[in-house]
Amino acid sequence: MDDTRLLRDYIAKCSNWGRWGDDDQVGALNLVGPDQVRRAAGLVRKGVSISLTLPYDQRGPQPGGFRNNPQLFATATGLDHVSGAQEPLPGGFGPARGFGFHDDLLVMPTQCGTQWDALCHIFWEGRMWNGRSAGEVTSRGAAANGIENYTGRIVMRGVLVDVPAHRGVDALQPGEAITPDDVESVLAAHDLEVEPGDALLVRTGFMAARRGDWGDYAGGPAPGLSLHMAPWLRVHDVAAVATDTWGVEVRPNEIGYFQPLHIVSLVHGGIAFGEMFDLDALAADCAADGVHEFMFVASPLPLTGGSGAPVSGLAIK
Amino acid sequence: MDDTRLLRDYIAKCSNWGRWGDDDQVGALNLVGPDQVRRAAGLVRKGVSISLTLPYDQRGPQPGGFRNNPQLFATATGLDHVSGAQEPLPGGFGPARGFGFHDDLLVMPTQCGTQWDALCHIFWEGRMWNGRSAGEVTSRGAAANGIENYTGRIVMRGVLVDVPAHRGVDALQPGEAITPDDVESVLAAHDLEVEPGDALLVRTGFMAARRGDWGDYAGGPAPGLSLHMAPWLRVHDVAAVATDTWGVEVRPNEIGYFQPLHIVSLVHGGIAFGEMFDLDALAADCAADGVHEFMFVASPLPLTGGSGAPVSGLAIK
Amino acid sequence: MDDTRLLRDYIAKCSNWGRWGDDDQVGALNLVGPDQVRRAAGLVRKGVSISLTLPYDQRGPQPGGFRNNPQLFATATGLDHVSGAQEPLPGGFGPARGFGFHDDLLVMPTQCGTQWDALCHIFWEGRMWNGRSAGEVTSRGAAANGIENYTGRIVMRGVLVDVPAHRGVDALQPGEAITPDDVESVLAAHDLEVEPGDALLVRTGFMAARRGDWGDYAGGPAPGLSLHMAPWLRVHDVAAVATDTWGVEVRPNEIGYFQPLHIVSLVHGGIAFGEMFDLDALAADCAADGVHEFMFVASPLPLTGGSGAPVSGLAIK
Amino acid sequence: MDDTRLLRDYIAKCSNWGRWGDDDQVGALNLVGPDQVRRAAGLVRKGVSISLTLPYDQRGPQPGGFRNNPQLFATATGLDHVSGAQEPLPGGFGPARGFGFHDDLLVMPTQCGTQWDALCHIFWEGRMWNGRSAGEVTSRGAAANGIENYTGRIVMRGVLVDVPAHRGVDALQPGEAITPDDVESVLAAHDLEVEPGDALLVRTGFMAARRGDWGDYAGGPAPGLSLHMAPWLRVHDVAAVATDTWGVEVRPNEIGYFQPLHIVSLVHGGIAFGEMFDLDALAADCAADGVHEFMFVASPLPLTGGSGAPVSGLAIK
Repeated sequence: MDDTRLLRDYIAKCSNWGRWGDDDQVGALNLVGPDQVRRAAGLVRKGVSISLTLPYDQRGPQPGGFRNNPQLFATATGLDHVSGAQEPLPGGFGPARGFGFHDDLLVMPTQCGTQWDALCHIFWEGRMWNGRSAGEVTSRGAAANGIENYTGRIVMRGVLVDVPAHRGVDALQPGEAITPDDVESVLAAHDLEVEPGDALLVRTGFMAARRGDWGDYAGGPAPGLSLHMAPWLRVHDVAAVATDTWGVEVRPNEIGYFQPLHIVSLVHGGIAFGEMFDLDALAADCAADGVHEFMFVASPLPLTGGSGAPVSGLAIK
Repeated sequence: MDDTRLLRDYIAKCSNWGRWGDDDQVGALNLVGPDQVRRAAGLVRKGVSISLTLPYDQRGPQPGGFRNNPQLFATATGLDHVSGAQEPLPGGFGPARGFGFHDDLLVMPTQCGTQWDALCHIFWEGRMWNGRSAGEVTSRGAAANGIENYTGRIVMRGVLVDVPAHRGVDALQPGEAITPDDVESVLAAHDLEVEPGDALLVRTGFMAARRGDWGDYAGGPAPGLSLHMAPWLRVHDVAAVATDTWGVEVRPNEIGYFQPLHIVSLVHGGIAFGEMFDLDALAADCAADGVHEFMFVASPLPLTGGSGAPVSGLAIK
Repeated sequence: MDDTRLLRDYIAKCSNWGRWGDDDQVGALNLVGPDQVRRAAGLVRKGVSISLTLPYDQRGPQPGGFRNNPQLFATATGLDHVSGAQEPLPGGFGPARGFGFHDDLLVMPTQCGTQWDALCHIFWEGRMWNGRSAGEVTSRGAAANGIENYTGRIVMRGVLVDVPAHRGVDALQPGEAITPDDVESVLAAHDLEVEPGDALLVRTGFMAARRGDWGDYAGGPAPGLSLHMAPWLRVHDVAAVATDTWGVEVRPNEIGYFQPLHIVSLVHGGIAFGEMFDLDALAADCAADGVHEFMFVASPLPLTGGSGAPVSGLAIK
Repeated sequence: MDDTRLLRDYIAKCSNWGRWGDDDQVGALNLVGPDQVRRAAGLVRKGVSISLTLPYDQRGPQPGGFRNNPQLFATATGLDHVSGAQEPLPGGFGPARGFGFHDDLLVMPTQCGTQWDALCHIFWEGRMWNGRSAGEVTSRGAAANGIENYTGRIVMRGVLVDVPAHRGVDALQPGEAITPDDVESVLAAHDLEVEPGDALLVRTGFMAARRGDWGDYAGGPAPGLSLHMAPWLRVHDVAAVATDTWGVEVRPNEIGYFQPLHIVSLVHGGIAFGEMFDLDALAADCAADGVHEFMFVASPLPLTGGSGAPVSGLAIK
């Protein structure tokens, strides 16, 4: 089958447009209901919370240009306080009398580090999730499908699929695609099955390989999910998928379309895509205790109309 | 007792400096261990997740000036895609072939909306939490006590103390102080006790009263915790306290010092302070089911060296 | 004549589309050639340079919201230096050995203070200057008619038209329109004529009336040029016009179209529009020496693809 | 003489502290008075204005990190207008009726491109220009010696010293120092003398060599002025010096102090330092007509308390 027919075939098979009503703006997160939330909480046994988020700072993975690393600008400092420059306090708050404060401003591309793509982040032939027009996304942001729709919703069972650990290697290589067979093989080894509404956290080891010396980590060739994961994700009704790479799917792409898994599974499937999640501490913990499922809590900031948002993601075991 | 003696007396009584070692940078969050995390998860019964975060956008509570409301700048839009302006794709990604994307940049003061104060946010006489020098907070941010230390840690039992609901009013008024008697009265009505490591979410109704027409909500007079809550928080080993106001404590302050509860309970007690939490949906849910305790998950973004950070806070019941 | 016919009639009479070639991107600045530059320099007699630019800072005229006042964020301070926080120097520059530095970042809307509108700033029915499609202005900025085209070009004779001084009042009132008769009356009083390629600096006194207590100065009702100035500007081949108001033309507008003088004289006439120029010091100087013409140098920053740019404008006499 | 003695000797010889009063904040620009302004205007003969400023955009010389290249974020676009997204107009301006607009926000480090250093940009042993304490520069910016003091003042005779043209090479190499002999040799070749209050524009060819493929142009090794130019600049009472390099002086530095010419001539001499001026078009023009003097107008934006500011610099001949 040629690339175009394959892509359109996958779109037809995997689309969830209309499944949760014409007004829906959260997509596959609809698969997470009270049962899924309770089940997730029931996985908390050790009482340990593991952060899945890279530090947001100038040592992040972005090479600059279109997307820079996060910058924090101090607008008030301890040195100001110590030197007397906060006397009197600003804002008409009167004499300091020993009080001082630190304040700052954040400047960051929403897509620069650990983050969820919103359902308005990707378009296909003029449309985004649920068939809405891409024209609803203007300079003022997204009038629909913005990341704020995800806020409060990403609480479910998470399952770690640590592909390099399973293969006994440190990391997959750029261009290596993770297939349904790979995922099923890892799950079988841990005697786990994916259930509707789950979040699949797929580790490639690529973040560990590049951490601190990022090179072209963000935007360059990378291991990742095969396009052929699309039907599998749809059949299993996975709600969210996150990886330790910049773009979830393998790069270069397997067919002559840019980010085809985004086109099929995000635009049409409505599955939440999480990128640059730091899965290394979680992987170490799972390797140690042999438990690869957990409560996954990763609600993004409600940036109204945003194409995505940073998130402090947690695996709670 | 005069103001100065009172303040110093409270500092002496409530300080936790050194309690968790000289290098500690998380303060009272040390009170949250595996038992507390497990107990929190055990409170998830209905399988419902409630967001506690205000939308981050231009309709937020800031009046402008020192702190503005969040701004999101679109760097790529659906209109770009539809018009052909993304042909070819930027970044050397080749022809679009139907693919398009939305991207944006966030600019926001860390303290402008729902957020946690870091332990480096407030100084007292040249010192911050655990006795560290305020001089460690320079233009490059905080070398210690930054908000990134909280990331991954704020997972515990939360207890809602809805003062106006208990009093049968819509909202407390600016200048109204919430005392230990108030809190105990509310807790007793729900047959609840606060335990070490808990998060106390105190609702004043002030956000509900001002929502959408904020006026001087952020920075002006406000209801809030009395300074005299300080010993109570310390005795009960509360780990975190959050309110639906801009500054946790009552304004104007009750003594001739600026934000004295911050001085006592944050700088010296090391208690996490959460501000502008939206507690209204949670309050409605608690009123409906009569359950005022829940799993509280509110891990802030790891903004390295930050004075605070936005957070997507959840009450999971 | 009804509003629509009037507007279209003025457009037909005043348009310069095509006058300087189909590729032109500077409009009426083409009227400034070597003769005009030399003539301007010849007006320097006293050897005095007068700034026409408002300070760019938080005390500026913007009320917040869509456009804020300029913010400058210090990324390195003298306090850092004094405290030893610049030891060693950043960037691998080695030990400080007594050296220190201050650095900062600017965040500002291009249209927030003294500034030139670019010829891509305003559209009319899908077109901008010289008939180009508005669709050339995307999230990446303007592919044509950007403000960088003005850089290096705004050097010409300037003529001050101080309307309130002529009328013996402090300031014109919001809604007061300045007509060709007004301008000619002021010019006649100083025995001046406007020549092709001149810049007309029209003072209303409105900035003086609002300085420091701006209220709705930026965006609200204002005195300014009448729409009926359009044919006069065209006939006299004025290259640039600048006022001490936020939008050059009178507000509310005289007809049922928004900013119709922009539509006629900027979009179709290609005349450079300068806004929020501080003409008060210049007015005082001209009143003192009786000389109302000068060398005008006001080249904007070359912000590639920008809708406008801040400028340090000078009147040199 | 050892490095320390040499540096202190030059400081002693070249200092202008107190020369223009204890409150002075403009330094050597005091050397420019009415005579100098008139003389500058008298140099305008051809009626040509040449821009000396690099475009401010993402193709600029910064490698990212501490200082990024300028970014312009569109907040309203032509595509918005064309698509109907500006209907009605924002800000309560009513129906568009054919009107549309483009707007944007600028984010840029003040020192990232063509710019003047302020007299608060550099410190030496806790002091800045005129002996003021570095402690006056806090998170709120500079309380003294800020760049706004230069605004309106940089109008004088400029003299181009094109060293590579004189030597018959394309560009000087990193590490090559330009000495007083070099400068005098170039001046003599053009039969020019530097006079008090002049601006010296020294071209190294390094910008031409790196343009568009900047590498470590900004921050790395570079040709530039020798430290031994300091006494020469002082004796000739040069008011301002600008180069086509990132830091005026040669890098690596000739002695074991960082940027010693800044320490001597900027901090103590109060001479205006201009960096990353694009002198190539000017050099071509001077080579063509043999005239290496001109009216130099380069007033920086008045960024209150800024460490420097971008500027649209002009050579008018």
